Amino acid sequence: MYDGALGDLIEELGQLPGIGPKSAQRLAFHLLSTESAEVERLISALERVKAQVKFCETCGNVTEAEECAICRDPRRSEELICVVEEPKDVLAVERTGEFRGRYHVLGGAINPLEGIGPDDLRIRSLMTRLQKGETKELILATDPNTEGEATATYLAMLVKPMGFKVTRLASGLPVGGDLEYADEVTLGRAFSGRRDID
Amino acid sequence: MYDGALGDLIEELGQLPGIGPKSAQRLAFHLLSTESAEVERLISALERVKAQVKFCETCGNVTEAEECAICRDPRRSEELICVVEEPKDVLAVERTGEFRGRYHVLGGAINPLEGIGPDDLRIRSLMTRLQKGETKELILATDPNTEGEATATYLAMLVKPMGFKVTRLASGLPVGGDLEYADEVTLGRAFSGRRDID
Repeated sequence: MYDGALGDLIEELGQLPGIGPKSAQRLAFHLLSTESAEVERLISALERVKAQVKFCETCGNVTEAEECAICRDPRRSEELICVVEEPKDVLAVERTGEFRGRYHVLGGAINPLEGIGPDDLRIRSLMTRLQKGETKELILATDPNTEGEATATYLAMLVKPMGFKVTRLASGLPVGGDLEYADEVTLGRAFSGRRDID
Repeated sequence: MYDGALGDLIEELGQLPGIGPKSAQRLAFHLLSTESAEVERLISALERVKAQVKFCETCGNVTEAEECAICRDPRRSEELICVVEEPKDVLAVERTGEFRGRYHVLGGAINPLEGIGPDDLRIRSLMTRLQKGETKELILATDPNTEGEATATYLAMLVKPMGFKVTRLASGLPVGGDLEYADEVTLGRAFSGRRDID
């Protein structure tokens, strides 16, 4: 449709996830009429992300150093490792302010349909970490969907015989949610996981 | 939330129209794990758009030359000028394949609430064009909303006394649409603009 630089930009933007042809066009025109300094800040951020951000050698979280801030923090305990799928899940757990252990980021979940098997995830480095003997409990905080559950089951099978305590995050009704709108699987889990009131 | 380059990128992406904090985060992580060559193509397109794309001196359309391809095309007639709000409207009209005249891009519409008055639009350069005496008809193809209608009314008031034929695109039911789902204003316009069947 558009030739030259504008057409190229629309095409590149349209390849990003969740951005269709119409959004790509709107974004390109927005960027065209945006101040150059602002576009340069975006370009610089893109360049720095590609040049500086890498994955923590220990846990797989994002970091600009060899090891991420959480792995370097001596106040965090290696006794408790929370296993998550993606770096953004680390941030989600950190926001709760309740977890003082460390993380292990798998980099995805087992998904046979997309050809992602255990070897494609950071499971080997988790085993290496566990062999150091500092860890007591592994919290499997993979997503509560088919792939996440399969990954958790696989990991539990692998790790439990080694003598570690293995837990999974509780499933149930979201706080502030409405019982009426809960899907039946969630409501079923909320029932089977019901607790005594203290 | 995120420090350093990744945080900067999420912030910059989140300032683009239609991209909220969650989308910005998802895009940033996507770009982080995308091949560098692909991100470089995006950066290059951004740089070229800012360096090379400008607005046609005659009509205000986007172009990489002094004048856009339509203004330079000797087969297009200056007798008929289609006035639109944005460069993307030029493409929309071009896609119909029915218009062989030229365009004039206003760069927006009159919008008192946002402080956009006639002086903020490319109306003066339209007047200069009309004074050349080549033009016979002006098609006001601004958007069929309050701002577009106000702009069309203003332009008609300005141009009609100068002796030009002034027309407005027909309002009515969209082709392939459903009468039942048409809003009452559109349906009203479709009635008042009804035509004899040949």
